[in-house]
Amino acid sequence: MSSFNDYPSRNHYTPSAPPFPDPLSFPPRPAQPAFPPSYYLGQPAQFPPGTHPEIIRSFSAVDRDGSGSIDEGELQVALSRGYQRFPLRTVRLLMFLFKRGSSSKIGPSEFAALWSCLGQWRAIFERFDRDRSGEIDSSELRDALLSLGYAVPPSVLQLLISKYDEGGRRRAALNFDSFVECGMIVKGLTEKFKEKDTRYTGSATLTYDAFLLIIIPFLVA
Amino acid sequence: MSSFNDYPSRNHYTPSAPPFPDPLSFPPRPAQPAFPPSYYLGQPAQFPPGTHPEIIRSFSAVDRDGSGSIDEGELQVALSRGYQRFPLRTVRLLMFLFKRGSSSKIGPSEFAALWSCLGQWRAIFERFDRDRSGEIDSSELRDALLSLGYAVPPSVLQLLISKYDEGGRRRAALNFDSFVECGMIVKGLTEKFKEKDTRYTGSATLTYDAFLLIIIPFLVA
Ligand SMILES: [Ca+2]
Ligand SMILES: [Ca+2]
Repeated sequence: MSSFNDYPSRNHYTPSAPPFPDPLSFPPRPAQPAFPPSYYLGQPAQFPPGTHPEIIRSFSAVDRDGSGSIDEGELQVALSRGYQRFPLRTVRLLMFLFKRGSSSKIGPSEFAALWSCLGQWRAIFERFDRDRSGEIDSSELRDALLSLGYAVPPSVLQLLISKYDEGGRRRAALNFDSFVECGMIVKGLTEKFKEKDTRYTGSATLTYDAFLLIIIPFLVA
Repeated sequence: MSSFNDYPSRNHYTPSAPPFPDPLSFPPRPAQPAFPPSYYLGQPAQFPPGTHPEIIRSFSAVDRDGSGSIDEGELQVALSRGYQRFPLRTVRLLMFLFKRGSSSKIGPSEFAALWSCLGQWRAIFERFDRDRSGEIDSSELRDALLSLGYAVPPSVLQLLISKYDEGGRRRAALNFDSFVECGMIVKGLTEKFKEKDTRYTGSATLTYDAFLLIIIPFLVA
């Protein structure tokens, strides 16, 4: 699970990534095969080495103009190939968490990181959905977050479930996309909090400005 | 502007409100007129004394079963009568800010408070839209928030505008519903911050739990 503790470190893949020596480099100098595999489309050179071809294919399928970046609508379509059709709200949150700077698009390396991260959330979802109900209830969520190192108090768990449970059922629980949202939010906010609680006391002192600057990006508009 | 500084005090109207001695009391003991005015519908007894008939009418028009409470969809319809059709996202934020407890509905007194508050935001919008562009730009937003006592730093203003500007235009600005959202969020978060910064030092110390509990409700799901 250590890869989760790196998150949302965004330099896991790219800035210091070595130049790609592999034949997928773009523009491909050696003659292309007559029928290049579909993952040659787009700008595969920007994918980290070892990226699963399925990820490259999914990206290229939506990056039709080969610009090397996709917007939230295209991301939604791409994810529906490998995962499911997430609501635009979830897609926006994912975009915010994985994109770099103020761009409203993401490129191959961010896409690959996002895709892998979703795979890890999917595995966690399945692992902690102990009763195989296809949903994560409050105690399952507690344990799932705990496994990631987030000791979320019961009051917060209850609040999260009540906000993201879409069914309004008696026994509230989260489907996969709500679980991803909850998990990403807890993760993102906890990382921000930790940055201000460098001594791990469980308390952090924030200025008014810092307080607003931490929160506002999470308000998905 | 002092009424704004009371916000989000939710007991402005109701808990200690005196019993209503006026003839609008419900159930109306004296014989009703043959054709009761429309504001007899619903449960007008729960409106604070002096509530404008238009507010009562708007509420009653959507509270068809006379249960005395309306959900977010009904609120959206009611507001479109007096203001405009707000996006569901804005409606949800308003619901969250004005409803009491964990209910997913609001009653007459909350509705009346919300309606009046929107009227005040409308007046602020018009007053600070100095160039009459029909939108609030960054400097207009700064001055509008300052008039309410919120000294929001430029970095936060920029972030807010970038998140709520729907057009993605070069000169970003907010239409009325984005302005209401931004204003309500700054107001709500500032009040929460102030509760933790009782000496008005500009800094607040928050536990991890308190930090999450403050923020999560603002993440409108
Ligand atoms: Ca389950
Ligand atoms: Ca203007």
